[in-house]
Amino acid sequence: MTREIYLDNSATTKPSAASVAAAVQMMNEFWGNPSSTHAMGDAADKKLKEARRSVASALSALPEEIFFTSGGTEANNIAVFGAAAKNKKIGNRIVTTTIEHSSVLDSTAELERLGFEVVRIAPDTHGHISSEQVCNAINSDTILVTMMMVNNEIGSILPIEAAVKAARKIAPRALVHCDCVQAFGKIPINAKRLGADMITVSAHKICSPKGVGALYKRKGLSIPQRTFGGHQEDSFRPGTEAAPLIAAFGTAAGIACNRTEMNRRMEHVQSLNDYAVKKLSEIDGVAINSPSDALPYIINFSTCCVKAETMLNYLSGRGIYVSGGSACAKGEPSHVIKALNLPHDAADSAIRVSFGADNTTDDIDELVRAVKEGIATLAHFN
Amino acid sequence: MTREIYLDNSATTKPSAASVAAAVQMMNEFWGNPSSTHAMGDAADKKLKEARRSVASALSALPEEIFFTSGGTEANNIAVFGAAAKNKKIGNRIVTTTIEHSSVLDSTAELERLGFEVVRIAPDTHGHISSEQVCNAINSDTILVTMMMVNNEIGSILPIEAAVKAARKIAPRALVHCDCVQAFGKIPINAKRLGADMITVSAHKICSPKGVGALYKRKGLSIPQRTFGGHQEDSFRPGTEAAPLIAAFGTAAGIACNRTEMNRRMEHVQSLNDYAVKKLSEIDGVAINSPSDALPYIINFSTCCVKAETMLNYLSGRGIYVSGGSACAKGEPSHVIKALNLPHDAADSAIRVSFGADNTTDDIDELVRAVKEGIATLAHFN
Repeated sequence: MTREIYLDNSATTKPSAASVAAAVQMMNEFWGNPSSTHAMGDAADKKLKEARRSVASALSALPEEIFFTSGGTEANNIAVFGAAAKNKKIGNRIVTTTIEHSSVLDSTAELERLGFEVVRIAPDTHGHISSEQVCNAINSDTILVTMMMVNNEIGSILPIEAAVKAARKIAPRALVHCDCVQAFGKIPINAKRLGADMITVSAHKICSPKGVGALYKRKGLSIPQRTFGGHQEDSFRPGTEAAPLIAAFGTAAGIACNRTEMNRRMEHVQSLNDYAVKKLSEIDGVAINSPSDALPYIINFSTCCVKAETMLNYLSGRGIYVSGGSACAKGEPSHVIKALNLPHDAADSAIRVSFGADNTTDDIDELVRAVKEGIATLAHFN
Repeated sequence: MTREIYLDNSATTKPSAASVAAAVQMMNEFWGNPSSTHAMGDAADKKLKEARRSVASALSALPEEIFFTSGGTEANNIAVFGAAAKNKKIGNRIVTTTIEHSSVLDSTAELERLGFEVVRIAPDTHGHISSEQVCNAINSDTILVTMMMVNNEIGSILPIEAAVKAARKIAPRALVHCDCVQAFGKIPINAKRLGADMITVSAHKICSPKGVGALYKRKGLSIPQRTFGGHQEDSFRPGTEAAPLIAAFGTAAGIACNRTEMNRRMEHVQSLNDYAVKKLSEIDGVAINSPSDALPYIINFSTCCVKAETMLNYLSGRGIYVSGGSACAKGEPSHVIKALNLPHDAADSAIRVSFGADNTTDDIDELVRAVKEGIATLAHFN
């Protein structure tokens, strides 16, 4: 069997042995209901507290500022709808971008249907959004600015600090929410220093199992809850906690956000990125869509001659796993690629490669070889 | 160390080896993103489909009628808010009971704040709610009837069939939702035969890990979604799927809802129940709060002389785990026990014992001995 090469780490990552072990321990040993008022409940609750401290620490936040959710999508929904519900009486404008994750795009679109004004900032052809664009979009009627830190399809880094600064100046009561799903574990995030009111993170992008995420909500900020029930997550997000996943998340966050490890990984991934950009650019017709100052974990490129879906299937058949658009937009053209206003051929053939710590230059060599062969085999069929 | 005796299976259950193995397989082997359009995504997606078929089959439902959620609380919220949003233009009354799970109590209370009329049926002192009460509560203005199948604290069985019948007759456009969390895996549930439009089930009550549940929504029924984002769960409940938990849930549902096994378990638990009721009733002052026709998995009783919390601590110190009220009402007096209108001493000392397949009469002997000693030791301090 061919060696499998996984270059789709922005879609999801392989859970680390340590995070799987943490989940298994919860299932086999600490399986009491954390809400139960007996020793088995207490033991499970203690493990949840450990995980909460770990995720909080990874964001330089307080444990009571962390609310576990079923993932990034739910956290984004809670933040967007919560901010709108809280602030609907003081203004009507929501500022966001055209390249957000579908959970922000679709929740803000729902708010638009409900009568809010949604201003969507579009990137330039390199995926950049400038501080000036953000400042210009925010007015005194603005009640929410929701913007991702790192785009999930092209890796461009958005001007969150500028957004916070502009919001505080122009619309002091506006809330700022930052979807940090693609940045968490890759770029150091200090919640307080960043200054956002709410931050979304997800476990399965940092080598932890799927099904859990967290919303950071700064201490003192109260927004209406979206789910009603028991006292869990300070009654803000009730429901029996996904204890195995939360414990795994805590473990994974501790590993991913260790500063030394993070720097070491970044160096490694930067060298992979440099190598891949060089090798891919040498292929006739290939264009790199990611900006040169993107987070190096993501490279988006176009073959300009083979449709993305066709190339993905071809690569998958050779045991090489990459993606076209985000995993959440399965089978549909990517809204992010559309937003770049690329030439038709480039847009139709855009492919995302996303690195993990375990990738090597050998993986890139294999990818480049396969892309070349794919072009040779498939291009004239398009 | 003392042998531990777990008699709190309505709070949560120990994940079975098979369900843990299913979760571990997803984490270690099928960890691709089910939405990814490559072989690893397809492999994960295939496992999700298997799990969906299994949960559907356990409810005699179709796979496309099953929507995975983060648990019973989220499923109840989706059903209650979705039904209200769908039907708000055709009526205003919501019929429910005073002994629902907090996720139904609190979501319907929120709807009341928003202007809906919420009619809450109260049980008699044995926890019974009659068909007549339900019929009388439903009028032509009713848009939703939401009622649990089995109460989680006293085990009383509610007249769901009568509720469906009355709703169809009196308010044909009303939706009927049934929280089956405590019934699933214990009583055979045939979604179509039951006739409810929506049904809530949860994994961690049937020997599967915490953090996942499902909403059955009958084919053809469309209600507004509560979370916005990707295409997952037919775009009705987006977000990367909690693949390990869903696979475990599928495995556990297959085991729990096997009819032969279910009957065998029921026989065993009925004999435990008979034995426990007899032994507990022999203790001076003890009163059984559960009705005699309750689901045998749950026995609620009162010592009438030691506060529940004090007794729980005492028992926990001896390695015996039971509960006072539901786990979701930690530290608060139980709304269900309040609803029974028991004498003060009985209400304050109410304890829930809930059985699993692994419990034995030895467990009950230990419990009874400890309760007796607890009374002897603690009663005069109250």
